[in-house]
Amino acid sequence: MATIKEVAKEAGVSVATVSRVLNGNGYVHEDTRKAVDAAIKKLDYRPNEIARSLFNRKSKLIGLVIPDITNPFFPELARGVEDFLQEQGYRLIIGNSDENREKEINYIETFIQHNVIGMISTSGEDTSLWEALKIPVVLLDRVTENYPSVYADQAGGGRLAAEILLARGSNNITLLRGPQHVRTAQERFLAALDVLGRSNAVFQVVNTSFSFKGANETAKQLFDMYPETDGIVASNDIVASAVLREALKRGKNIPENLQIVGFDDIPVCELLYPALSTIHQPAYQMGAEAAKLLIENILHSSNEAKQIVLPVSFKERETTRKVEM
Amino acid sequence: MATIKEVAKEAGVSVATVSRVLNGNGYVHEDTRKAVDAAIKKLDYRPNEIARSLFNRKSKLIGLVIPDITNPFFPELARGVEDFLQEQGYRLIIGNSDENREKEINYIETFIQHNVIGMISTSGEDTSLWEALKIPVVLLDRVTENYPSVYADQAGGGRLAAEILLARGSNNITLLRGPQHVRTAQERFLAALDVLGRSNAVFQVVNTSFSFKGANETAKQLFDMYPETDGIVASNDIVASAVLREALKRGKNIPENLQIVGFDDIPVCELLYPALSTIHQPAYQMGAEAAKLLIENILHSSNEAKQIVLPVSFKERETTRKVEM
Repeated sequence: MATIKEVAKEAGVSVATVSRVLNGNGYVHEDTRKAVDAAIKKLDYRPNEIARSLFNRKSKLIGLVIPDITNPFFPELARGVEDFLQEQGYRLIIGNSDENREKEINYIETFIQHNVIGMISTSGEDTSLWEALKIPVVLLDRVTENYPSVYADQAGGGRLAAEILLARGSNNITLLRGPQHVRTAQERFLAALDVLGRSNAVFQVVNTSFSFKGANETAKQLFDMYPETDGIVASNDIVASAVLREALKRGKNIPENLQIVGFDDIPVCELLYPALSTIHQPAYQMGAEAAKLLIENILHSSNEAKQIVLPVSFKERETTRKVEM
Repeated sequence: MATIKEVAKEAGVSVATVSRVLNGNGYVHEDTRKAVDAAIKKLDYRPNEIARSLFNRKSKLIGLVIPDITNPFFPELARGVEDFLQEQGYRLIIGNSDENREKEINYIETFIQHNVIGMISTSGEDTSLWEALKIPVVLLDRVTENYPSVYADQAGGGRLAAEILLARGSNNITLLRGPQHVRTAQERFLAALDVLGRSNAVFQVVNTSFSFKGANETAKQLFDMYPETDGIVASNDIVASAVLREALKRGKNIPENLQIVGFDDIPVCELLYPALSTIHQPAYQMGAEAAKLLIENILHSSNEAKQIVLPVSFKERETTRKVEM
């Protein structure tokens, strides 16, 4: 690989001049700058980014913490973040926290030690972890008052899921509640609850986690407790898949006698049979928006708590009945 | 955060001495070393890792490239890598290449620029990309002659899948072939093909990708072309799920009239109905083994092309018939 000396020789200038061009500081004549750029290109010179970030604080590294890399919703978010950053010349470190505070702290430390210039977190809402950071932070699929956040309209999604079941004739509805400490999960739950509370339907609430572990067990308990249920608003698609499996196993006709609505729209929904009707969150777009907002905040040294809420939509597949419009 | 000066003051030594202890070079009396270590602990001092990696080449950062973060097999591998590294005090950067050479090169550049000290790749087998790297590389779920590799027994898995269908009475078998440029996929395919070739069963081959995109379309074509097939060896679990969906849609009884065996054992297998019988690859363990091998090679400056092959096993669920033992 070429050195800065070789670039200087090729451009016919001093090393200090090349350094001024690279760092964008000090006066350099336009013609000189062009000559240096041409030499960099010709020799395929790549300045040592670490050295530059150290002396220059111009690292291009961004950190992303996700709570559960095995839930397919998060890789999709991560790809949205990554593609936007890559286009803009930034680099991404991904850390997986497993919703574990200790692991999250470890990753944040790694980020700091490697001079990341901004961070996106889809994990936890414990802002105390970030307060010591002097870099912009954007929350993704998570919300607090004090930080800029990008998330999908959870209340709208919860409402929509409940309304869809009611409009399609379910009148004994089981509402599955995700982890209560996750505010987005709680928001969608409360909105669905409100819709059911204003309806004439019988309904009940069952608590669930969001992960594969225990999903089948939860589904079994659900039908043991509420065998008469004819509509299920699931906390996410993983849980919905487990509920669908258990319902089929018990011989229920879907969607004739039981309707199920998931949440997220992960890729596997359309491989299920019947394919899962669900509330679509624009995960890829959410990731890209969060990356965009973070870069804006980095460039303008701002950490204004802007909230970007993206719309959700109903993805009609085969676990809900058709209605005539 | 404490500075190196404060550590020196606390320990009653010079900054240069603290630096010698941190960098492990130059002579330091054992008592002095203990005093410095105690001061570091007491003040919770964390040396700037970037500065240290720059001057010292003692970065603790490892890079991992995965080919498709949305295929649940790879996040599981990544977790195995991550957990092992975290325990050993190393840090992980994950990059997602999308099986795209350009993106893979970008990540490798990022790794070099951030002084990673070793790399694990589950993407591509184009060794020319790594030859310029002066750091140990370990392949994971991928194989070449020239690099150390950790992978599951693909040939054994392919053989097992075919034998299981034959032993359970399928005699018109469709063998799905994954991407031909992926050697592990090709190995399991050839082994299954060999078993079928030695049997009396009718069989045919259909090409597939490994991703969600197009999986349903492939499944439709399969049953259009070979409506009589009574056993399917799938290229991976995603493709198997799509095949299962299409078969159910066409009213086939599973496993009575059609048996399906997947490959990988991703978490969603047990949420399907019927739950997918598959060849289990120990993904988490494979990740941990690759991380272990890489760290050994880093510590001993070795890049010996050791091959670690982990056994696969048949995970019997509901898409294959029971046999009496």
